[in-house]
Amino acid sequence: MTISNGKTKDVKICYIGGGSRGWAWSLMSDLALQETISGTVSLYDIDKEAAETNAVIGNRISEKRDAKSIWEYEAVHDLGAALTGTDFVIISILPGGFEEMASDVHAPEKYGIYQSVGDTTGPGGLFRALRAIPMYIDIAAAIREYSPKAWVINYTNPMALCMAALHEVFPEIKAFGCCHEVFGTQKLLARAALEILGLKGVGRENINTNVLGLNHFTWVDKASLNGIDLMPVYARFIEKHAEGGIEIDEGNLNSFFKCRNLVKFDLFKRFGIAAAAGDRHLAEFVPWYLEEKDTCGKWGFTLTPVSWRIENRDELIQKGRRYASGGLPIELKPSGEEGARQMIALMGLGNLTSNVNMLNRGQMPGLRRDAVVETNAVFGKDDVRPVMAGKLPPAVNLLTLRHAEVQRATLKAALEKDKELAFWAFTQDPLTAKLSLSDARALFEEMLENTKTYLPFS
Amino acid sequence: MTISNGKTKDVKICYIGGGSRGWAWSLMSDLALQETISGTVSLYDIDKEAAETNAVIGNRISEKRDAKSIWEYEAVHDLGAALTGTDFVIISILPGGFEEMASDVHAPEKYGIYQSVGDTTGPGGLFRALRAIPMYIDIAAAIREYSPKAWVINYTNPMALCMAALHEVFPEIKAFGCCHEVFGTQKLLARAALEILGLKGVGRENINTNVLGLNHFTWVDKASLNGIDLMPVYARFIEKHAEGGIEIDEGNLNSFFKCRNLVKFDLFKRFGIAAAAGDRHLAEFVPWYLEEKDTCGKWGFTLTPVSWRIENRDELIQKGRRYASGGLPIELKPSGEEGARQMIALMGLGNLTSNVNMLNRGQMPGLRRDAVVETNAVFGKDDVRPVMAGKLPPAVNLLTLRHAEVQRATLKAALEKDKELAFWAFTQDPLTAKLSLSDARALFEEMLENTKTYLPFS
Amino acid sequence: MTISNGKTKDVKICYIGGGSRGWAWSLMSDLALQETISGTVSLYDIDKEAAETNAVIGNRISEKRDAKSIWEYEAVHDLGAALTGTDFVIISILPGGFEEMASDVHAPEKYGIYQSVGDTTGPGGLFRALRAIPMYIDIAAAIREYSPKAWVINYTNPMALCMAALHEVFPEIKAFGCCHEVFGTQKLLARAALEILGLKGVGRENINTNVLGLNHFTWVDKASLNGIDLMPVYARFIEKHAEGGIEIDEGNLNSFFKCRNLVKFDLFKRFGIAAAAGDRHLAEFVPWYLEEKDTCGKWGFTLTPVSWRIENRDELIQKGRRYASGGLPIELKPSGEEGARQMIALMGLGNLTSNVNMLNRGQMPGLRRDAVVETNAVFGKDDVRPVMAGKLPPAVNLLTLRHAEVQRATLKAALEKDKELAFWAFTQDPLTAKLSLSDARALFEEMLENTKTYLPFS
Amino acid sequence: MTISNGKTKDVKICYIGGGSRGWAWSLMSDLALQETISGTVSLYDIDKEAAETNAVIGNRISEKRDAKSIWEYEAVHDLGAALTGTDFVIISILPGGFEEMASDVHAPEKYGIYQSVGDTTGPGGLFRALRAIPMYIDIAAAIREYSPKAWVINYTNPMALCMAALHEVFPEIKAFGCCHEVFGTQKLLARAALEILGLKGVGRENINTNVLGLNHFTWVDKASLNGIDLMPVYARFIEKHAEGGIEIDEGNLNSFFKCRNLVKFDLFKRFGIAAAAGDRHLAEFVPWYLEEKDTCGKWGFTLTPVSWRIENRDELIQKGRRYASGGLPIELKPSGEEGARQMIALMGLGNLTSNVNMLNRGQMPGLRRDAVVETNAVFGKDDVRPVMAGKLPPAVNLLTLRHAEVQRATLKAALEKDKELAFWAFTQDPLTAKLSLSDARALFEEMLENTKTYLPFS
Repeated sequence: MTISNGKTKDVKICYIGGGSRGWAWSLMSDLALQETISGTVSLYDIDKEAAETNAVIGNRISEKRDAKSIWEYEAVHDLGAALTGTDFVIISILPGGFEEMASDVHAPEKYGIYQSVGDTTGPGGLFRALRAIPMYIDIAAAIREYSPKAWVINYTNPMALCMAALHEVFPEIKAFGCCHEVFGTQKLLARAALEILGLKGVGRENINTNVLGLNHFTWVDKASLNGIDLMPVYARFIEKHAEGGIEIDEGNLNSFFKCRNLVKFDLFKRFGIAAAAGDRHLAEFVPWYLEEKDTCGKWGFTLTPVSWRIENRDELIQKGRRYASGGLPIELKPSGEEGARQMIALMGLGNLTSNVNMLNRGQMPGLRRDAVVETNAVFGKDDVRPVMAGKLPPAVNLLTLRHAEVQRATLKAALEKDKELAFWAFTQDPLTAKLSLSDARALFEEMLENTKTYLPFS
Repeated sequence: MTISNGKTKDVKICYIGGGSRGWAWSLMSDLALQETISGTVSLYDIDKEAAETNAVIGNRISEKRDAKSIWEYEAVHDLGAALTGTDFVIISILPGGFEEMASDVHAPEKYGIYQSVGDTTGPGGLFRALRAIPMYIDIAAAIREYSPKAWVINYTNPMALCMAALHEVFPEIKAFGCCHEVFGTQKLLARAALEILGLKGVGRENINTNVLGLNHFTWVDKASLNGIDLMPVYARFIEKHAEGGIEIDEGNLNSFFKCRNLVKFDLFKRFGIAAAAGDRHLAEFVPWYLEEKDTCGKWGFTLTPVSWRIENRDELIQKGRRYASGGLPIELKPSGEEGARQMIALMGLGNLTSNVNMLNRGQMPGLRRDAVVETNAVFGKDDVRPVMAGKLPPAVNLLTLRHAEVQRATLKAALEKDKELAFWAFTQDPLTAKLSLSDARALFEEMLENTKTYLPFS
Repeated sequence: MTISNGKTKDVKICYIGGGSRGWAWSLMSDLALQETISGTVSLYDIDKEAAETNAVIGNRISEKRDAKSIWEYEAVHDLGAALTGTDFVIISILPGGFEEMASDVHAPEKYGIYQSVGDTTGPGGLFRALRAIPMYIDIAAAIREYSPKAWVINYTNPMALCMAALHEVFPEIKAFGCCHEVFGTQKLLARAALEILGLKGVGRENINTNVLGLNHFTWVDKASLNGIDLMPVYARFIEKHAEGGIEIDEGNLNSFFKCRNLVKFDLFKRFGIAAAAGDRHLAEFVPWYLEEKDTCGKWGFTLTPVSWRIENRDELIQKGRRYASGGLPIELKPSGEEGARQMIALMGLGNLTSNVNMLNRGQMPGLRRDAVVETNAVFGKDDVRPVMAGKLPPAVNLLTLRHAEVQRATLKAALEKDKELAFWAFTQDPLTAKLSLSDARALFEEMLENTKTYLPFS
Repeated sequence: MTISNGKTKDVKICYIGGGSRGWAWSLMSDLALQETISGTVSLYDIDKEAAETNAVIGNRISEKRDAKSIWEYEAVHDLGAALTGTDFVIISILPGGFEEMASDVHAPEKYGIYQSVGDTTGPGGLFRALRAIPMYIDIAAAIREYSPKAWVINYTNPMALCMAALHEVFPEIKAFGCCHEVFGTQKLLARAALEILGLKGVGRENINTNVLGLNHFTWVDKASLNGIDLMPVYARFIEKHAEGGIEIDEGNLNSFFKCRNLVKFDLFKRFGIAAAAGDRHLAEFVPWYLEEKDTCGKWGFTLTPVSWRIENRDELIQKGRRYASGGLPIELKPSGEEGARQMIALMGLGNLTSNVNMLNRGQMPGLRRDAVVETNAVFGKDDVRPVMAGKLPPAVNLLTLRHAEVQRATLKAALEKDKELAFWAFTQDPLTAKLSLSDARALFEEMLENTKTYLPFS
């Protein structure tokens, strides 16, 4: 890429998982709305047709009148070719198919284990990690070979273990992981400022927060707005909505993703710190919100069935085809994601402090050094520097350490193809704690069998 | 004390908990059998009568013909006076009474939680720690004031947290904790050498072992005898006794303390490393051996009811009185404990390498720095130096880390009088994992109420 | 203080060393130019008269028409009273008098040791530290007692050891140290952008830099402007001015403080990284620029004699009296220092990322944990969070480690009143390396005698 | 090898540098005097003839009547073949020839730098390290390939960096470094016990010492004998011999190796801890004993000229030929070295606690983790475990840290072929501290030129 006069030309982006729907379209839209950058996006996907379709969609977007910059899209079916010469690598893949995801989410239900998402922690998250890590090993090796200086932005879950795998293979990789879950808590705080203090027009970006924790088990221990400490404000807001919670309208969000924030409110009352991820994610880390099949209902969220994901995918495939054919017009609007802004900041063309997932090199002193932690970071030209985030309160840290250790053991199990270690990691997750050892073994073996095509164990 | 010509005179020992039966009598007997040391033992106990009785017993022992050295015993009812000028401090106390112990062990049974001992880990161990830590804070402060240069030998459970509390108050304390549980595994290895290799006359002291782990969740990863690697020998021995286990005769051991070593054998098969504590202790750390009330029976050990302890105490009180009155003759014989030998080694009068519990200053790289770990140590004059013990296998380390974190949180809860943190530590113990959060809360509050006299929470 | 609508009233500042000239007047002027904050400044100084005079001057400033905010100044002669209720503590003191400073700077000259400043490192810096640490111990104890929640901003040299002493006594202190030396390098980079790239109107605040190192031995390893990497630009700039260097006009800077930046240029050529402190400070850490009395002349800087400081002080005393009496009008203009901006940012009323000196809690992985390091930090409401600064290049790190170790030993010597340790620290400083051991001892003893009134050794 | 009934047959030893005189002959003699072990020794040397000669000598020894065990010696000219199947690897090589050693020792003399040995630290030690590290990289790679399970015993200097290089290439290597320098201090302590306490017949092996530090800058902070603290005894001994020192007769030791222990005595008086290496080695770390050419004379030791080493080698070559031809009879007697005893202990056939050089994994908390440190270790079957050695006194630690950092930078320079980093390491050694930067550069370049054949820089 070439930077001059505050503009960048010939940016090259390689999108691994570039056939994805939703995420890819959002990014295309966000890129088209940037005035200062332009270039090429190489879409790589094992679903070649999906990548081709998205290339057509992307180029259609560039033709739109309201596009502020021109991007050229191409489907590239060779990973090395897609990576060569790239400035940025975006990774957003599905580790396995919906059949595997169905095993992740639903196999444990027979044993009374309910997961609202199943992609980060618990039995589902663990098996998803066991599938993803071998893929990330390959990706990291390819990046090391073809684009070692590129910045790598990961969106795939389980975030922590995908990131950790990249660093295991290529320690010098310039990588961070992005997740928008923290934004929801920032929006809640803005709402609290409105309702309790009467402050109008406050956006999440006006609120200063200190972020710390593990991805999807993330926390905000300080929040302020224009010199006002928002933590006591949030406490009053929670009291006000103690009964029914409050839904922050996320537009056309499907009902499976909605929540009344009652988990967040309960965690605040218990620990005096604001949890900063969706309730569906949080609940899986502290599974008293999922004790029975219907416990989640009382807490105002739902379990997302994989059947819905399949239906949704089919609809999106149709939508994609119509976008590509021109049958459905594509609307350009900001997605609220930060990907484009981050890349611009990495070019040195804009200041940004935002939350990222990175290897703990000291920014979270209470957790092990090689954990992947989520904290704020300062973006600069060719630079992402985590901010020293401090320690979690002791009780929260205790709960967090256990997950960090399970994650580390899962990573080691996948790297060293050690099935038994994976089993012991499985037994230490709070979601499986209620199982007898023999039930734990039976469920583990069943999930192993269901997803064996993708697993590292021979 | 004065050392010359390989002998020490005027050794001064302060025994905190010096009214104890059993332990105190063993030590008296062991001291009387040493030829190279003599001196005074100050017995301090909150049960003043018990200390007085033991002083009488001790002095009776010194009068025996077969006593090889003369020790003067005195009951001292002021802790400062008992500590002043002492060379060694032995601590062996009961943190609370049998009523509290009954709560520790039996209150959880209503919730399906069975503990074979209840003094180290699990809900019982945690509450015992919450009672013991305030006592150890006082003891450490007294030692810092009255005998800062003395060596402190702890026998009280929960070992790890008693030791940790000493160091919190008086970081420079010269202290280690002793536990004979490892000896049992060494005896098993000697038996394996006999049965599998036909080697006769092998004692536990002939076997070289590397010891590592937490007290009562301790392991041996290397064992050899005269150049022969005993680990494969132990594997064959286990295969031979796979079905029924094997009881190593411990003389007049009460049936509640007997075990067929099936837990140890099962752990070896699972993890490829020899567990080195009694099965009753080990089972509480990996509670699949305690899933139901009668699970332990299948594994060849029993739950020890507190009622038995009460009966036993009463018998011992009677016995003590008869010892004191001369009605029952006292027999001198080596107890198999290492206390006397350790003190002699600390005088520089004998080499000793043995397992001790000490603050982790690096001897166990896989565990947190401030954990109290059990490893070998080399004893020398005024010196106990842990040996670098290496790392546990990853799966065992994962299980161990969780206990180390629960211990740390329990310590912090007691030190900072933080009841909520104690509760969260309580929920993270594997023994309570099966409880719903509300049951966990109910049990915690009940145990709190039962034992509140001794707890640090206001 | 009270914050509302983006303004803060009743800010309370305690200025320790508040009788100072120059620094105090700059701060008064900067405060008067802020529109959003107002309050009271308590001036504490062991020179009571100086504090009284400054209070008069401060209140005169508040009366000025062009003052944008009103501050009330008072001289407070009791430290506890001055600290009570304060929001901010500023510390800017002289550790000892000019007689001691004369010993620091000039006593070593007899032995061929030349120091350009003598307040940070080398024999002068070490003795200044030995005097300052006992003072900081007292200050830290007072802050712990009277204003434990206040933010403490230190300006006194030696920066690193003053900061370290605060944390030794009061580990939870909310403190950072400020130094404007980095700004000079940022100005040089701006000048390079002008001369090499023709970019006009670039201020130091437009340049993004990553700062890391020890105070006065600080470095910038990344610099960019609007997406342009400035390091190669700086390299070309250095080549252009290789011969004569370049003086960046600092207005009415006395000739003793001027420099042609040749030390910085030489260090860049040697190590490929930009040194970020004045040449006079840098030279004392890498004393090949001070090998002989006149070496510094070749490198474009001068040794600052203490006699000049004495003269200068006398002039300032006169000036202060005239300010106070109204004989000399006080001009309000921004000083270029960041103190006021930092306090505003700490109120949550403005974003700021700037370089600070703080205890290394992980932000500089290559240096020991308890060193005081200078890195960027993000300021927020009641919050200063260092940014992970990365590692210095190996050769620079090697030179830096030695200074960090000498500093640590000096601190320990002062805290434990260990004169011999101070001597060995003295011998390990590169500036004294040329001395024989007996000369080192003689010089050390002489400097000790010269300054004994203030030293911690009995 | 095969172990049974406390004896080992078919031990295989690979001796790299097996053509050496002196060391090799001592080992042959020691092996022949062992009753419990026998096997084969493969002698590998780049001087093939020397290896052949030594094989003949070794086999002659096996034929001797007083040989208690039979060893077969063979010269093997392929390193892979020599290593294959071996149980132990002994490394004792000369990194470069005498010409290079002459540069190491004598080139610095022109600049007023005098080295008594020149093989460990200072300019000589640094250049020797730069030559040795590439050799050790090759050796480590060969061991990893051909004998990854063998125990590796290093005798080559510079000990610390040879050991560190092995671990860089092959982190799991089972290696330790042996040095007999500590024995001398143990002998001095025995002598003190004789002279001050009148204790006869005390050998160095009766004295318990705690050893800690860097090789050749090693210390003993605790020493006892039969319960008696020897440190005050040593203090009185030193007072007695304050004036003239005392020579401990080492039999036929050449005058260049003799010393009156005045350096050790002086260090004890300065730091209150016993230095534990020969004065010639110690002096190079704290070079006030080497300030002028004749300073060493006042301290009772001499500089060893390389010319003497050349003469001595020639004599040894002659001696070797006469041994081989049978012209000179070989006398069997224990060498006082511990190599054979260590190997026996590693077979599990004997207890041993001795000082070794190993990677710091925590045994010396005051020094960096990847330093190679000398401490006691407990030997067991297939096991060498360092003992936690504690910290050096602060002043000694300060001096030691500097050397540890110079060593680390030297290692990095050799591994990464970074000549400039080697230069900066060179400038930080206390022996070169007196040089101006330009003299340092000139000397460095000269030594580089002198020894370039062996250096890693292209």
